[in-house]
Amino acid sequence: MKYPESIANLIESFSRLPGIGPKSASRLAFFVLKMKDLHVERFAKDLLDVKQTTFYCSQCGHITDIDPCMICRDESRDRSQVCVVENITDVFAIEKMGEYKGLYHVLHGSLSPMDGIGVADLKIPELLKRLEDPNIKEVILATNPNIEGESTALYIYSKLKDTDLKVTKMAHGLPVGGDLEYADEVTLSRAFEGRREF
Amino acid sequence: MKYPESIANLIESFSRLPGIGPKSASRLAFFVLKMKDLHVERFAKDLLDVKQTTFYCSQCGHITDIDPCMICRDESRDRSQVCVVENITDVFAIEKMGEYKGLYHVLHGSLSPMDGIGVADLKIPELLKRLEDPNIKEVILATNPNIEGESTALYIYSKLKDTDLKVTKMAHGLPVGGDLEYADEVTLSRAFEGRREF
Repeated sequence: MKYPESIANLIESFSRLPGIGPKSASRLAFFVLKMKDLHVERFAKDLLDVKQTTFYCSQCGHITDIDPCMICRDESRDRSQVCVVENITDVFAIEKMGEYKGLYHVLHGSLSPMDGIGVADLKIPELLKRLEDPNIKEVILATNPNIEGESTALYIYSKLKDTDLKVTKMAHGLPVGGDLEYADEVTLSRAFEGRREF
Repeated sequence: MKYPESIANLIESFSRLPGIGPKSASRLAFFVLKMKDLHVERFAKDLLDVKQTTFYCSQCGHITDIDPCMICRDESRDRSQVCVVENITDVFAIEKMGEYKGLYHVLHGSLSPMDGIGVADLKIPELLKRLEDPNIKEVILATNPNIEGESTALYIYSKLKDTDLKVTKMAHGLPVGGDLEYADEVTLSRAFEGRREF
């Protein structure tokens, strides 16, 4: 017996999410059937809203619903530092730590020749252009401590080493091979403190 | 730093789903940000559709988008047998096995005095009324093989034992303490074959 079409469709939609297989997708769909109408309607609205009201900051590439984003427009932040990260989730992780007060630059990925991701696919050209601003004194490379992240940092460093910019990278307090966003706050904090010249 | 409001809302909506904690909810929300607009719009539509187009069959209580449901209106099915299950997911599991050709009755839960779920909270009154139909000869109690399921079966049996109905229950091939919907097809099939008089 087939599922009614609307249920089959919802299972398919849930299956598109990461880490959700066909069995979990079915369970979630059947759970939705039992949810309050209000909650389901809100869920649908939230899905649409998040796509319609958010975009990437034209300056730093972080996700925002206002341009420039709240970080870029915050006059109390240190405009001489730019922390370069791979993903928006990394910005949230570092902000949660609460000790970094500079600006960010989100690359939206890392260099990965195997996957055909090159310099032009990331916000690296935008970063290099942005760093021509003489107010910026330090670039903190906070890409993920794995092969792609390290290569990306190395590439950016190669483009900056002959400038007057101080280029630092996160201290090796981060567990190697992992993702930055999973590091706990203390580890992140230590990694910031111990940052050193590239 | 707080999430933009629309992201915070979406994380909250994902958190309402079973088995999805705050961390998973965040990951899913950020994944949605990267999804194609088309897929997100379809997801939102599927959520609304499933609530708007599906309802419970007025005869058997199974989920359907047509009343009576495809099973109840199927003239080729054996109308002398009614298989009583707790949940709509059990109907799909038994149908997947493909050997049972009778009708169903979905109780929408099991008796659980601890949770305040009594006879009137389930479709038990509807079942007893439905079984007054002289065409029905056999009732197969296929509630889950756990305490609540067994008590529910026992209660229904107590109401039927003085009638002419043959009351059977699933053979103990089902793993005790589990949920019927997780049983593999062979186990389900054996359980059907070996059903015995209550």
